Amino acid sequence: MDQVLSYIASNHPRYLEELKDFLRIPSVSTHPHHRDDVQRCARFLADELVRIGMQRVECVPTGGHPIVYAEWLGAPGKPTVLFYGHYDVQPAEPFELWETPPFDPAVRGENLFARGATDDKGQVWLHVKALEAHLARHGRLPVNIKLLIEGEEEVSSRHLDAYIDDHAEDLKADVVLISDTGMYDYEQPSICYGLRGLVYMEIRIEGPCKDLHSGGFGGSVSNPLNVLSGIIAQFIDDDGRITIPGFYDDVVPLTDAERRAFASLPFSEEDYRNRLGVGALAGEKGYSSLERIWARPTCDVNGLLGGFTGEGSKTVLPSKGMAKVSMRLVPDQNPDRIAEAFETYVRQLAPASVNIEVIRHGTGKPMLTPTEHPAVRAAATAIEKGFGKKPVFIREGGSIPVVATFKEKLGLSTVLMGYGLPDCDAHAPNEKFNLKNYYRGIYTAAWFYSEIGS
Amino acid sequence: MDQVLSYIASNHPRYLEELKDFLRIPSVSTHPHHRDDVQRCARFLADELVRIGMQRVECVPTGGHPIVYAEWLGAPGKPTVLFYGHYDVQPAEPFELWETPPFDPAVRGENLFARGATDDKGQVWLHVKALEAHLARHGRLPVNIKLLIEGEEEVSSRHLDAYIDDHAEDLKADVVLISDTGMYDYEQPSICYGLRGLVYMEIRIEGPCKDLHSGGFGGSVSNPLNVLSGIIAQFIDDDGRITIPGFYDDVVPLTDAERRAFASLPFSEEDYRNRLGVGALAGEKGYSSLERIWARPTCDVNGLLGGFTGEGSKTVLPSKGMAKVSMRLVPDQNPDRIAEAFETYVRQLAPASVNIEVIRHGTGKPMLTPTEHPAVRAAATAIEKGFGKKPVFIREGGSIPVVATFKEKLGLSTVLMGYGLPDCDAHAPNEKFNLKNYYRGIYTAAWFYSEIGS
Repeated sequence: MDQVLSYIASNHPRYLEELKDFLRIPSVSTHPHHRDDVQRCARFLADELVRIGMQRVECVPTGGHPIVYAEWLGAPGKPTVLFYGHYDVQPAEPFELWETPPFDPAVRGENLFARGATDDKGQVWLHVKALEAHLARHGRLPVNIKLLIEGEEEVSSRHLDAYIDDHAEDLKADVVLISDTGMYDYEQPSICYGLRGLVYMEIRIEGPCKDLHSGGFGGSVSNPLNVLSGIIAQFIDDDGRITIPGFYDDVVPLTDAERRAFASLPFSEEDYRNRLGVGALAGEKGYSSLERIWARPTCDVNGLLGGFTGEGSKTVLPSKGMAKVSMRLVPDQNPDRIAEAFETYVRQLAPASVNIEVIRHGTGKPMLTPTEHPAVRAAATAIEKGFGKKPVFIREGGSIPVVATFKEKLGLSTVLMGYGLPDCDAHAPNEKFNLKNYYRGIYTAAWFYSEIGS
Repeated sequence: MDQVLSYIASNHPRYLEELKDFLRIPSVSTHPHHRDDVQRCARFLADELVRIGMQRVECVPTGGHPIVYAEWLGAPGKPTVLFYGHYDVQPAEPFELWETPPFDPAVRGENLFARGATDDKGQVWLHVKALEAHLARHGRLPVNIKLLIEGEEEVSSRHLDAYIDDHAEDLKADVVLISDTGMYDYEQPSICYGLRGLVYMEIRIEGPCKDLHSGGFGGSVSNPLNVLSGIIAQFIDDDGRITIPGFYDDVVPLTDAERRAFASLPFSEEDYRNRLGVGALAGEKGYSSLERIWARPTCDVNGLLGGFTGEGSKTVLPSKGMAKVSMRLVPDQNPDRIAEAFETYVRQLAPASVNIEVIRHGTGKPMLTPTEHPAVRAAATAIEKGFGKKPVFIREGGSIPVVATFKEKLGLSTVLMGYGLPDCDAHAPNEKFNLKNYYRGIYTAAWFYSEIGS
């Protein structure tokens, strides 16, 4: 590793210039007029992968933007890492809010400003550079590696599932590695080992067959909006517990070690409350905010609609109402089972005076990578060496669909080693990547491939 | 009365032709291009009132369409009736759904088809003809009468309140008479002696200061839509009783006589349920549907809005939500007191984790004219003589704002003697007036003025 490290150390200026070149290509996947730019960006990346010595480098056409695939499988007996990232970026609008143009990367202070700097070009490039360092110094990698870098992450990975289905054999690996998330805090690297899943439902309720006059009929017939509110009100009890029968059956409780680890993280409930602008935080009794977000399931109304919603008043007794309700799930809740339990419960709560339709919009499985997983241990060691500081182990409250996809389609766990910062402004104007973390990320990635191969 | 009755009997054909002429004028108050027609219609009516012998006939200009006023005060010592009606009509669109043109009155079977036939030109004209009969035969009326016939009822009576304020002295009377409602059923004349009032509120709720990602924050902060549903759910208990503290304090209970009277009306709960297309009727425990609609207060959600309401799914934890909630009130509930109790209750139900704003959109007082009121008794006798059938005493679930206005501004009770039928299609294409009821209405009105003056 000494040679690899000294190689990296002597190439910082070039790494910066190359990343700038990568960022100059406006690979905005959602805009049709950037189609050629996205293509050019895929080519730029593929050329670099060929240059550093990766094998079987391909720009695979899809129905949309190409997927860049590369591999190096010259380490028989060693594990295989499937690295996933994306080279497409969010649109940069509104342009006028950028201090310097989004596709003209500029260094100010510790940061490199450009669209895609953090999300995800910077984090992809640092892995390419780590691989380059190994290959340049030793002509080989300490581990087998497959790179899958798509150009449609910002447009719902439209063609990724089909690609994975078609290439399941090619993509066989031991673990997935993704650098597309954030650090817990400035100067505090982290490994995310858990994500919540999702069940997104819609309730449609119908009372009388048409809108009625609230004077001529009110009081004699169920108002579907009152009924809908009554149903929703019964989803969560006074202790913040979700009341759907069987909802918690498969929930893996937080371990004492996890609770201690979360509690030791710098987190101020008071700052958090102020940041959200609420008079009080709220949630399931007996849990801290971090525990509630990372490791406990939810039942949130995402949308409500019914009756007259304009200015002023209209005395209508509405015929119909609608609620979108989603549940964040934690391991080992099964989205299909929860969706079914939800529908059964809603139907049971609804009186005979209304009709109910329950629609399932989407589901995603929760994920938990055991912290004893060799790849997680390798990541922890790599981060400690790369950053000079031990990582904290965190979970996240959201879902990363591609993680669930890898689990479902390939049976693979994912290690999330991200280098974004809370203020990196991914998806916003003036996106930036902290250059200290860019360089540390290269060292860390180099260490990771070395550690996991040993 | 014999002479009056024989006069009416010998003039049916003329009464029909005159009403047709009145209906031919397209007095659509909402369409600016009918402004001259509305004016012409007022003039037509005023000319007729002069012709039959009314005094002080005026077309009073307002900021909008004129008010037609007339009086005959030559019966000292006798009561004074303030008759209210309107000569403006709803728009006739969609024209293509009319079997014959809306402003070319046509008789088919028992009915006269035209816009305004029932609402309210036909019902105004029958009173004019009853007054004509008295004046033609006796040169005098059996009662003092003031006619107030506006041209803006279909556009919220925009200038009526100001007119009443300015002419409070001129409008002094003993009772108000209105023929702008319906009969209980075909062949069953009725007198409406009670209306519900209204309090229309809006709840605006705010949780976090901006929309949040339901993954990154869900579970740690109150979701304002869940909270709003929880508040609404507590407005009505399992027995259909409204739980706002003090809500029922001033409710005048139904008398046994009223309950018996309502129960004796032809009303099929099963037909009603089928007509509304619901699996079951619902409402306050211990009351029939008619009682629930006519004599019990309500708390109905008229509108709900919050978060994502488009197609599909969006994992938003919304910052805000809104509900429009109105309560129909019964005598002697006070709208201001109920509005205050509602606001206090909502604030008390809301947790510290949300902010609540409560807006008052409008209020209207409930009304109950004692069935022993001399004008009600006169109306009952008149109907029995005019129709050959005793009226039933009914209440209505809606509010008629002008009735509350007369009560508030002039202290007057109102007798509602209406001749519309449930299928008369007021406000819809092919509006019609049953001509049997038109003629019976003339006799009944003639009897009413005679009875109340005796």
